[in-house]
Formats: sequence, structure tokens, C-alpha cells
Amino acid sequence: MPSLAENLKAFQALKTDLFEKDFLLTWDHPEAEIRAIITLADTLKTLHKQGKSFRAFDTGLAISIFRDNSTRTRFSFASAANAMGLGLSDLDEQKSQVAHGETVRETANMISFLTEVIGIRDDMFLGEGHTYMKEVGDALTDGASQGVLHRRPSIVNLQCDVDHPTQSMADLAWLKAHFGSLEALRGKKLAMTWAYSPSYGKPLSVPQGIIGLMTRFGMDVRLAHPKGYDLIPEVVALAGKQAAASGGKFSVSNRMDEAFQGADIVYPKSWAPYHVMERRTQLLKKSDQPGLKELEKECLANNARHMDWECTRARMDTTAHKSALYMHCLPADITDVSCQAGEVSAEVFEQYRIPTYHEASYKPFVISALMFLTRLKDPGAKLEQIIQRAQNLSL
Amino acid sequence: MPSLAENLKAFQALKTDLFEKDFLLTWDHPEAEIRAIITLADTLKTLHKQGKSFRAFDTGLAISIFRDNSTRTRFSFASAANAMGLGLSDLDEQKSQVAHGETVRETANMISFLTEVIGIRDDMFLGEGHTYMKEVGDALTDGASQGVLHRRPSIVNLQCDVDHPTQSMADLAWLKAHFGSLEALRGKKLAMTWAYSPSYGKPLSVPQGIIGLMTRFGMDVRLAHPKGYDLIPEVVALAGKQAAASGGKFSVSNRMDEAFQGADIVYPKSWAPYHVMERRTQLLKKSDQPGLKELEKECLANNARHMDWECTRARMDTTAHKSALYMHCLPADITDVSCQAGEVSAEVFEQYRIPTYHEASYKPFVISALMFLTRLKDPGAKLEQIIQRAQNLSL
Amino acid sequence: MPSLAENLKAFQALKTDLFEKDFLLTWDHPEAEIRAIITLADTLKTLHKQGKSFRAFDTGLAISIFRDNSTRTRFSFASAANAMGLGLSDLDEQKSQVAHGETVRETANMISFLTEVIGIRDDMFLGEGHTYMKEVGDALTDGASQGVLHRRPSIVNLQCDVDHPTQSMADLAWLKAHFGSLEALRGKKLAMTWAYSPSYGKPLSVPQGIIGLMTRFGMDVRLAHPKGYDLIPEVVALAGKQAAASGGKFSVSNRMDEAFQGADIVYPKSWAPYHVMERRTQLLKKSDQPGLKELEKECLANNARHMDWECTRARMDTTAHKSALYMHCLPADITDVSCQAGEVSAEVFEQYRIPTYHEASYKPFVISALMFLTRLKDPGAKLEQIIQRAQNLSL
Repeated sequence: MPSLAENLKAFQALKTDLFEKDFLLTWDHPEAEIRAIITLADTLKTLHKQGKSFRAFDTGLAISIFRDNSTRTRFSFASAANAMGLGLSDLDEQKSQVAHGETVRETANMISFLTEVIGIRDDMFLGEGHTYMKEVGDALTDGASQGVLHRRPSIVNLQCDVDHPTQSMADLAWLKAHFGSLEALRGKKLAMTWAYSPSYGKPLSVPQGIIGLMTRFGMDVRLAHPKGYDLIPEVVALAGKQAAASGGKFSVSNRMDEAFQGADIVYPKSWAPYHVMERRTQLLKKSDQPGLKELEKECLANNARHMDWECTRARMDTTAHKSALYMHCLPADITDVSCQAGEVSAEVFEQYRIPTYHEASYKPFVISALMFLTRLKDPGAKLEQIIQRAQNLSL
Repeated sequence: MPSLAENLKAFQALKTDLFEKDFLLTWDHPEAEIRAIITLADTLKTLHKQGKSFRAFDTGLAISIFRDNSTRTRFSFASAANAMGLGLSDLDEQKSQVAHGETVRETANMISFLTEVIGIRDDMFLGEGHTYMKEVGDALTDGASQGVLHRRPSIVNLQCDVDHPTQSMADLAWLKAHFGSLEALRGKKLAMTWAYSPSYGKPLSVPQGIIGLMTRFGMDVRLAHPKGYDLIPEVVALAGKQAAASGGKFSVSNRMDEAFQGADIVYPKSWAPYHVMERRTQLLKKSDQPGLKELEKECLANNARHMDWECTRARMDTTAHKSALYMHCLPADITDVSCQAGEVSAEVFEQYRIPTYHEASYKPFVISALMFLTRLKDPGAKLEQIIQRAQNLSL
Repeated sequence: MPSLAENLKAFQALKTDLFEKDFLLTWDHPEAEIRAIITLADTLKTLHKQGKSFRAFDTGLAISIFRDNSTRTRFSFASAANAMGLGLSDLDEQKSQVAHGETVRETANMISFLTEVIGIRDDMFLGEGHTYMKEVGDALTDGASQGVLHRRPSIVNLQCDVDHPTQSMADLAWLKAHFGSLEALRGKKLAMTWAYSPSYGKPLSVPQGIIGLMTRFGMDVRLAHPKGYDLIPEVVALAGKQAAASGGKFSVSNRMDEAFQGADIVYPKSWAPYHVMERRTQLLKKSDQPGLKELEKECLANNARHMDWECTRARMDTTAHKSALYMHCLPADITDVSCQAGEVSAEVFEQYRIPTYHEASYKPFVISALMFLTRLKDPGAKLEQIIQRAQNLSL
């Protein structure tokens, strides 16, 4: 692992333009910014390991809006806010007057007078989460330009229908730590595959986030899923383009075995087919309960045709040196543990349990890095100051 | 806008006696205290605009008790607590044992051992919210005098059945900013009028708060509402007396047009009639669901007779220079936007949308000012110290 | 009350080994640690009384997990976390994905990356709360030893099925303050008795906590309850052994009057019989609603046979000098106040109301002391530093 001084130097060499901006989709940001985020997350993690504070604010609010359940992202955001010196406030849409006719435009301003960061999870409805975040962002820009807001808060996407950037960047930070550097990832074979789960309606944002980010670092990314379990076509197209540009590869197949063959990294995870999520969104909007029941039944029956899409020992034995790195955003559906048949066998999961925890451990630091970069005018100088303070302090 | 130095001087010249006191009704406080709050809110807002912290505490709790939904007041209180350096803790009466027989007296002490401020919203039952706050206050006074509490926390009224002081003082701070000074408000015509809404049971505290505060600054306050939509008689009487004492005027009519005629400021807003709220309180206490349904039906039918009480372009054209300042505590019922027919036309609201956001932006600073004045023994010295610190710092 | 300097000296003389450990049951900790906690709680309370901060952290999270309702413990934990400089985050199991298959092992790590303390209340199911806390603790130990967690957070038991250590130690701190010293408690007669309540299923952890702690300080502890209202046998056996070792006494009877006779301290409180809690746990696990209804009916009928177990004036008159100190963890079931017939008469409770508030006031400082001792490597040096800082500061 690079020293604090090396990380600081690397960080200061990377040009970023994130001040008072939002972070919604990784592919909307240049590679230098992704590298800066990963480097900064590493640095903050090192400081925390040494017991040094990296607090950057005296006061200020970080607001979270969760439109879906969450544990690890919720606590990652809470941890990051606290570590940066921000107070956390959750917008509970049940307790607020959002239901009573407050528009997004108005609410966005009303909660933001002393707010630095707004973290949003909205991954339930295809075509809506990302759109909602942009709507909030436009309202904040408007509020700031009209002088209503003294400073424009930054939005951090904590998972939308399209991308899950804090997950994919935490995954990238973990891969960097595991393989030694981002450069070491060039040519590595990553199998992002569908896997069977007895549940239904899992969002597409994790696989989309992975193919949308890892193809930028020269990896050989293999997407595999049963027929019909497609991702959003635009993201798949983008992954292909990015792979070509970065000197990597990107392929799509309908065979899990093909993707696993010789893989250095495997990421087997269930999701709902794109077209099912589209139908579901329509039914949800109409509150069509019988329709939703029918769709669920149909989908589970469909899933059940692909119960062989499981990450087993036999499949792991076909990977590079029989020991590909297994990844998962957690919680995984583990056969014989959390369900009768699931994404991964108990034996494989147990072997890689601790590595998946390490993978998860990067998320609070990635979110901290996003807060740091979007809220500080000169993040390089501030990081230098924090490192100096840490070195002068004996806690 | 006055400079920080001018504001400091003005603030230090105003005598206040709020240390460890509650702030429940504006009219229970001398004009000097109201002026001090407005001046301080201005000052803190300027500091925030300059990116300077006005944190005054190292640790301490601010507790919120919301017995009704809220977005802007909830976030205003959270923002103010955070900015002052206090941690926020919400008393969720569902999760606490309040339901299981804890008396107000006991609960008030149990939550207050390390607490500085308690913010309460209790506006649902006529005759109860203000009474509840006084009960909590008595318990705190008792606890402090018995040595149970090291310091007596202060209660901030975040809306009761009688007054909504953080709203009315934020409105006053906005009027001061808009017209240049509190003195400039003398003689200004303010139309506080009822307006049609398809909803029912809106509290009376906003119009009562407005007539109870603005009549103290020499304004010509015109209250207008349909017959039967009366406010609490005591507050109306008080408004009349205050207007006389301040050299202003106060009138009550049943004609919206009359109130708007030549007005400098209009504040059209729906509320339920006083006697309806009284009946509703009785029915709620008896959990008389059929009775409540019946009352709602009756009230909505009654409201529907006054759908012409809408703030339209035509009415705005009768105000001073056709351009009175439109005010609203938000969220407004906007015709063709949030409902089919409401308090204000879409066109008028859109014209004044940003000014209503500015109006709202004063609330967190008014609440901060109340925390500052009720918790610090020598607020003038502390403010001086904060301003000096801000001027020495380059963030 | 000893001075800050005396308390510091006493504290520094006591050897503790709590760094990065959990605090689950008082009897698992040597007397020196209990004395250190009480002394430290006293010291922090004195600092707070003087208006001095005892903040020990710049950032860090304190997580609370409440599996049962709570007011005073919830706010005590929130207050302690805030006073120590930690941010509070509540794990709401409804909003998290715990329901969706996250194991305790995984969740414990996922919430802990930047966490210092986890406070848990889990007192509903006999045989489960303590087991759950140990499970969480094992997961944290594993996570820290694997390098997943930079530091192992400490668990503070906020009430389990076996013990309620923050309650019993707050009670001990109050007894120390009331009688002048821990030494003054030697030989004092404490009646820990069952009392009638119209409610059902109250946990056993308070009486168990009291007999499990007070028997270590040379007191004459008298447990009394109706036949069949037994506590967990192991805790009763332990109390006997501890009393013998400390030069105190411990007796169990089925007569309230006997326990009260000549008592210096009385603690009359309702609880459910041990074997009922066992049956209830089984029924709850099977979600056997008719069975639970039946059990409740049976239990209330059973309770009703013991309505004479009330703390009355007549009984108080049989205590030492007719003026034993009445204690209760609150809220009490007060006859004619919170119920028709309850644990204590209105007159007796009102006489001792303020003392019970004082009793409760120690809890936030006991929890602060636990945070301090479990998170700081050299608590003696840190306390010295905090006291010096307090003495140098003029707030």
C-alpha cells in the first residue's frame, strides 16, 4: 500500500473539477476524477487505520434520502458524513410533507439552506431514479443561482436505476488494493454474471455500474446472463465503447461457464430483466396489485429455469489458478444458508466471506472522498493540511 | 444589508432576558427581544453566506418533538442545531414509552439531563399545543430547581395551536430585508387573508402569528376571511391593541378584495374556522370517526362556497403598483399545479416562487438566534467573539 | 461529593482492562472496574454541572440498536454519545436489510467500519438478548482480527434478558451519592421486591441486575416475590455467592412485608415469572397468537392474586426510621395515577418522585463512562487532560 505521502502526491497530480457538482454516473466523469476518488479513499482509509481524524468541516448537514431499504449504504453514508464533520439528517418522506403536495423543486431548496451534501438512493423504478436526481440537481442549481442557497449542495448517487457508483468505485478500490495498483488490472478477466435467486425485482444498477466502470481500466469484462435478462442497452453499448478505448475487452454471452473460464475475478449476482423492470414500473405506477402478483409469479417461474446459474466450487475450479477473486455487493443469497438455492454455494461464499467484507469496507471512504472533492475548493491543499495535522498529533 | 459590525453594534444595544427561558408566543416578549432575534438571525445568515461557522457549543443535545408532519421546520431546526454545535435527537413518541404511561412531567426531565434546547410542534388540537408546551416548561423549571437538571433547557415553539413564532419572525426578517429596515415597514399595508383550499383542518397558527407580530411594527394589517372562518378571539383582540400602540392599524373584514386593495404585502392562506377546530378537537378526543367524517364533509362543502378566495392576477393588479409582495409559509395549494383549485393561481405563484423561498430561508437562522439567546449568558460578548474568529479565519 | 481532583486520583488508582472490550454483565467484571465506572460517572457529572465539556473524540459513530421501546435509555445513550463527541446512528431493523437475510455476523461488520460503540437493547425473549450480544461481539472480534475493522467497536448492553447494567450501575452511583460513599453501603438493607402491575411480560433484567450488583458491596439484599415469580436461577445463585464473598447477606422470601421490615432501601417493581417468559418466548417464536392471548389472560389473572404487593405508606412505615429510600427504574405503575392499582401508592411515589429522577440522572454519565473506558487506551491520562482543560477554560 502506498504511503500517505505517496498518495498525497498522486492525488495532487490529478486534476478534478467536482467542486459543488453532483456525482451521479461514473461514466460522466473523466478518468482522472475516478483515480482521484480512489486515491483519496485509500488515503482516508489509511488515516482512519492510524486512528487519525480526517474531519474537514466544523458544521454543516449531510442529508440522506432513502427510497429503498439499505444497511451498508445507509451506514456508509452516515459514517462518511460523521467523519467529515457533517451532521446527518434523514429525509423521511413519510414524516415530511412531501406526500402533501411539495414539489421536488421546492423540497430540494427547503432542506438545503445549510446543507453540504444530499445522498439519494432511488433504485426501484426503471427510468426514474436517475431522472429524480437530475431534477433535484436542477432545483439546487436554480436555488443557488437565485441566491436562495448560499452554496449549492452536492448530490451523491447512493444507487439509482442506472448506476451504483459508490458500490462500483468501492469495488474498484478493493481491486486496486487486492491486485496492487490500477495498472495491475489491465488484462484481468472479470466475469460479471447473473446468478439465480429465489427473490425477484433486484435492481440492475450493480451489474451496470460494474461494466460501466471496469471497462475503463483495460480489463477483459465478460457479461453473462440467461436469455432475456438484459441490462439497459445504452449502458451495454457504452461498456463496449469504453473497453475498446481503454485497450480492454467486453463481451456478452448467455453462458455462465464461458464467463468463468479462466476468470481472475467473478461477480455472480441476481437481477431482474430490464423489460420486466419496465413492466413492473408501469404496474407500480398504476398500483395494479393483481398485475404485480402475476408478474412476480411469472418472473419467479422464469428465474427457476436458471437455477443452475450458481457460483459453485466446480465453476470456481475453472477460473484462473482455480482461485478467482469472488466479489459481491452483499447481502448474497447463499444456498443452504439464506435460502434453499441461491447465487453462491455455502462453501464458496464462506471461503470468500472476509474478502467480501474488505470489499465493502471501502464504501464509507469512497463516499467520504466524494464529499471531500465536491465540497472543498482546493482539495489537494486541504488533504495536505489534514495529513500534516495527523502527523503532528499523537492521539 | 448592514455589515457584520453594524449588526453587532445594533445587537449589543438591545437588552434581552432570554437566558434559560422558553420562546412560545411572540407577544409575550418585549419588542427589544424581537428586534434582537431579527438582528441576530440576519448576522448569522451573513456569516453563513461568507462560509464562516457560528458554532457556539462543543457538545449538547437539541431535541425535537414533532406531533405533526413537517419538512421545512424539521430541517430548519436540524440545521440550526447543527450550526450551533448541538446534536439532534428526535423524540419519536411511537418508539418511546410515552404511550405506556410516562407523564409529561417525567418525560420532560428524563430527556433533558444533557439537553440545551427542546423544539416542539404541536398544532393539531385547539387549546392543547400551547398548554402542552407550558406543561413541559413547568416540569423543566421544577427539575432544574430541584437540582435534577444541571441547567434548564429552553423550549422553542415550532408551531402550536396559538402561534407559529419561528414562521412569523422569519417572515418579519424577510420583510426587513425586502424593504430595507424594520422602520421601513411603518404604514405598509399587509393583507393577511383566508384563501380557498381543497383540504381541511389547516391550523390557525400562521394567520394568528402574523397578526400577532406585524401589528407591533406600525403596519396596516388587514385580516380578511369568509364569515365563520374566525381566528381565536383573544389573538384578534390583541392584534387590535398592538396596532393602536404601535401607531399602526388593524382591521377585520369578510372581503378579500378590500384587503388586497392597495396592499404592499399579501399573505393569502387557507385555515379552518376556529369553531370547527374546537369541534374537531372534541371529536378527535373521543375518536369519533363517523363524527370526524361528517365534520370533514361539512367543512369541505363550506370551503367550496368560497372558491373565489383565490390570489389571482386580477386581484394582484389591485395592489400597490400592481406588485404587492406575495408571501406564503409553504407549501401552497396552487391552482392547476398541486390541486384543481387552490389558494393561488399558478401564474402568480410562479412569479413569486423565488421570493417565497427567500422568505423560508430565514427560518433556520431565526431558530439559531433563539438557541443562541436562550442558551448563552452573554450573547453580545459571544457574538463579538464569533465575528472576530470569522474575520481572523481564512477557510 | 468528592472534588474533581479527589475523583481523578481515585480513578487513576483503579486498574481497568476494558479497552476495546464489551460491557454485558456487571458480574463478569472485577470490582475495581465497577468502582472505576462509578467514580468516572461521578466525575463526568460534576464536569457537566460546572458547564465543562468532557468531549473525548473528534469524530466516530455510536450505533444504537433498540429491539424494544425506550425513552430514558435511548436518550441516555444519545446524550452520552453526543457528550463524548460521537455521532449517533440508530440501526432501525425495519429500514435495513436485516429482514432480508443479512446475518448477524455480516451486519455487525457492515455497520462498524467507522464505529466506536454499539449500544444494544434486546430484552424481549428470555435466553436470547445476551446470546445475541455475544454473537455480535464474536463477529466484531472476528472482523477486527481479520483486518476488516481497523478497531473493534465495544458493545454496551442497554438491557438484555439477563442484566441491565447501565440501570444497576446508575442505581449504585445514586446510592453512593445518597449515602456518601460505596463503603457506607455495607450492611444497608435493600429490599428488591416484586410489585403488582396490571401489565404483563415486564423483563426480569432489572431485579436480576440489582441482586447481581448490590450483593458485591456488603449490602443485605432481600429478594421477595410471590411464589412462582422466580428470577433466572443462575443469577439468584450468583447473588448468594457474591453476598457471602463481600460480607453481605442475600435472602429470598415470598413476603413483601418481611423484606420491607427495617429496610434502608426499597425497590418494588413488577416482573413476569421466569417460566412464563420462557413459555412466552416459545409462543412468540411460533407466532402463536391464540397461545399468547391465553398466556396473557392467565398471567394477568395470576398477577391479580397479588394486588396486595403494593408499596404503600403502611409498608414504608415499617422500614428503617420509617423512611427507606424508594427506588424505581421508571416509569412506575402508580395507583390512581397511571393505573387503578399498581406498584406504588400515589402518595409514596410523589414523596420520592424527585429522588427517582436523581436516580435516573446518573444513567447518561454511566454510559459515558463505559464509552470512555472501552474506547480509550489510557483513560486515566485522558481524564487528567480533560479536567485540566476544563480548569483552564472560562466558558
